Amino acid sequence: MNYFSSDFKLGILGGGQLGKMILAETRKFDIQTYVLDSSDEAPSRFGSHAFYKGSLMDFDTVYQFGKMVNLLTIEIENVNLDALDKLEAEGLPVFPSPKTLRMIQNKGKQKDFYVENNIPTSPHQRFVDLSDLKKSIEKDELDFPFVWKCAQFGYDGNGVKIVRSAIDLINLPDVECIAEQMVPFKNELAVIVARSVSGEIKTYPVVEMEFHPEANQVEYVICPARIDDKVAQKATDIALQVSQAFNHVGLLAVEMFQTANDEILVNEVAPRPHNSGHYSIEASYTSQFENHLRAILNLPLGNTASKVAGIMVNLVGEEGFSGQVVYENIEKIMAIEGVTPHIYGKRETRPFRKMGHVTIVNEDMTEARKIAEEVKNSIRVISII
Amino acid sequence: MNYFSSDFKLGILGGGQLGKMILAETRKFDIQTYVLDSSDEAPSRFGSHAFYKGSLMDFDTVYQFGKMVNLLTIEIENVNLDALDKLEAEGLPVFPSPKTLRMIQNKGKQKDFYVENNIPTSPHQRFVDLSDLKKSIEKDELDFPFVWKCAQFGYDGNGVKIVRSAIDLINLPDVECIAEQMVPFKNELAVIVARSVSGEIKTYPVVEMEFHPEANQVEYVICPARIDDKVAQKATDIALQVSQAFNHVGLLAVEMFQTANDEILVNEVAPRPHNSGHYSIEASYTSQFENHLRAILNLPLGNTASKVAGIMVNLVGEEGFSGQVVYENIEKIMAIEGVTPHIYGKRETRPFRKMGHVTIVNEDMTEARKIAEEVKNSIRVISII
Repeated sequence: MNYFSSDFKLGILGGGQLGKMILAETRKFDIQTYVLDSSDEAPSRFGSHAFYKGSLMDFDTVYQFGKMVNLLTIEIENVNLDALDKLEAEGLPVFPSPKTLRMIQNKGKQKDFYVENNIPTSPHQRFVDLSDLKKSIEKDELDFPFVWKCAQFGYDGNGVKIVRSAIDLINLPDVECIAEQMVPFKNELAVIVARSVSGEIKTYPVVEMEFHPEANQVEYVICPARIDDKVAQKATDIALQVSQAFNHVGLLAVEMFQTANDEILVNEVAPRPHNSGHYSIEASYTSQFENHLRAILNLPLGNTASKVAGIMVNLVGEEGFSGQVVYENIEKIMAIEGVTPHIYGKRETRPFRKMGHVTIVNEDMTEARKIAEEVKNSIRVISII
Repeated sequence: MNYFSSDFKLGILGGGQLGKMILAETRKFDIQTYVLDSSDEAPSRFGSHAFYKGSLMDFDTVYQFGKMVNLLTIEIENVNLDALDKLEAEGLPVFPSPKTLRMIQNKGKQKDFYVENNIPTSPHQRFVDLSDLKKSIEKDELDFPFVWKCAQFGYDGNGVKIVRSAIDLINLPDVECIAEQMVPFKNELAVIVARSVSGEIKTYPVVEMEFHPEANQVEYVICPARIDDKVAQKATDIALQVSQAFNHVGLLAVEMFQTANDEILVNEVAPRPHNSGHYSIEASYTSQFENHLRAILNLPLGNTASKVAGIMVNLVGEEGFSGQVVYENIEKIMAIEGVTPHIYGKRETRPFRKMGHVTIVNEDMTEARKIAEEVKNSIRVISII
């Protein structure tokens, strides 16, 4: 197949920052792209051949969009799967497949899938709605504390809550949900697996994530994770096991917990480029975005190894600021060697909104970590007063 | 100044591959961009906020374009300088300045400038037209062999010819030109200097260029150059001297010859991102395109050092092929570790047309050089038969 400067058209469902960074790679290869997003302020509104505004959850919109392209991919899981089923049945390649997406869209199904496939994961229970969960507590079938997760459409801390006592139940929404046993963990790790149409597989190095305690959003992603080689190998093996079970095409980001006794438990997966792989743009031989493209286009996968140590700092909107964004002290951090800001292109900031990220690369991890903290303490995402 | 996700607008004169690679960096910083190019098939027609079709040599077109933006830069030297003068006089920042561009646009003036500034360069003579040059030969003031260069509008081997005897004069165009003494050289080197509005200066490592013997186009660019440290230091010092003399803002690519006795002679300069710096996208901490932006926006310059060894192979149209392009064996080279193709986005190939480039990065230069040759021998830019 001739993708390069040809009539071939790639469709991308979703026009957020992930789509924007995928688009950057399509420009490098000169692949024609069509993008669908519900907002005409979407970060991907530039850089594609055609941008369409429309709901990703609407059957007709997604179906009609799919009819215009030669291959369809996603940058967000929450899309109309019935439309994808129909497109696939009509012969359009859709990667990841609607089958993979259906398994992942619902966190209850996803957890069941791990159990069925002997993939280590924390014990869970599924509930059709909030009253179903409350009944389970009343019957002593579910004990405090537990991690509550809404089964669908949660992201970045939304849709996840630690429930310590009955009082925490009050503000939970009445939706399908799961309750997971709380697992004390030393580290949260992630491995991104790339798998091409023809089945070629490569894994990125294990990364380590540090979370912001309040916002439940990733604060630093550190590559390689500063963990024992044996633990890293185990995490990689389990990520490959998950990849094999899903039989996905494209990237699969596998988030895992490293428990106190060095067990690895799979938390959840994303079948697309992932926040935990943004460091790869600067640090890796081949970025996750390029390898997502290579995988779905059935091109050979690129080298997933790193040239240098990489750390990513998320840029999220500061609490107390809403409106036209200003990146305070961005000049200051740009003066530090190996620091690259990525501004996603959202004009309005809101508390905890993901507005961008900063990558720090260095030959020396200790130095990179020091600089990352300096970056974190310097830059603020605020609004024009 | 707040450039990021703001109303600030950067104008770029020229929409070729250099503009396309600058645009990629503006997207990362979410800077609004306007692009002007004479072709609606220009590689930069995507990825900007607004693309305008119009002649870069037309006063009104360039002037009106300039009135729409907050800062103006170029990706090609051949633009209407009177329009830039007027825009600058009216308060628009133009980087590089029309003064710098005027000095560089004319190769005769450029050579005189080196002589005036005690910058080592090969001896030259200027001629207003072809008959002026012929008269000089008849009067024995100019000896064969010499290098003929048209004074303006030449690029990539066009406008340069080695004249060994009277017979070579027959096909020369009747234009303003210069004759340079032929200098036997060991290496052709280049140093890219970045200089910001506030005068911060950084130099990229010295690169070494190998030319295609027939097309007179660069075949490999190798970073770092495999030369003696002392020669590298001398080349860097001279590049800085040239940069200081021009007092430019933005990048200045300084092409030099290393003579048989290790003298450094300046050949010519380009006040913009340059083919000899394409390797920097994959190999450097900060690419030349990002540093061009940082320089003209008066942001701190990024680290110009390399993470790994880098080699660039130009992808030029194969002789005997014209029409809708096909990149033969591109999948084969993408299977090699550390190989990244950049396809510029020109649908039609022609003999020797610059269609793209491939970067090879590796921790080990010897290995990188081996792979570069494999790449060169594998990929072919041909047309659909």
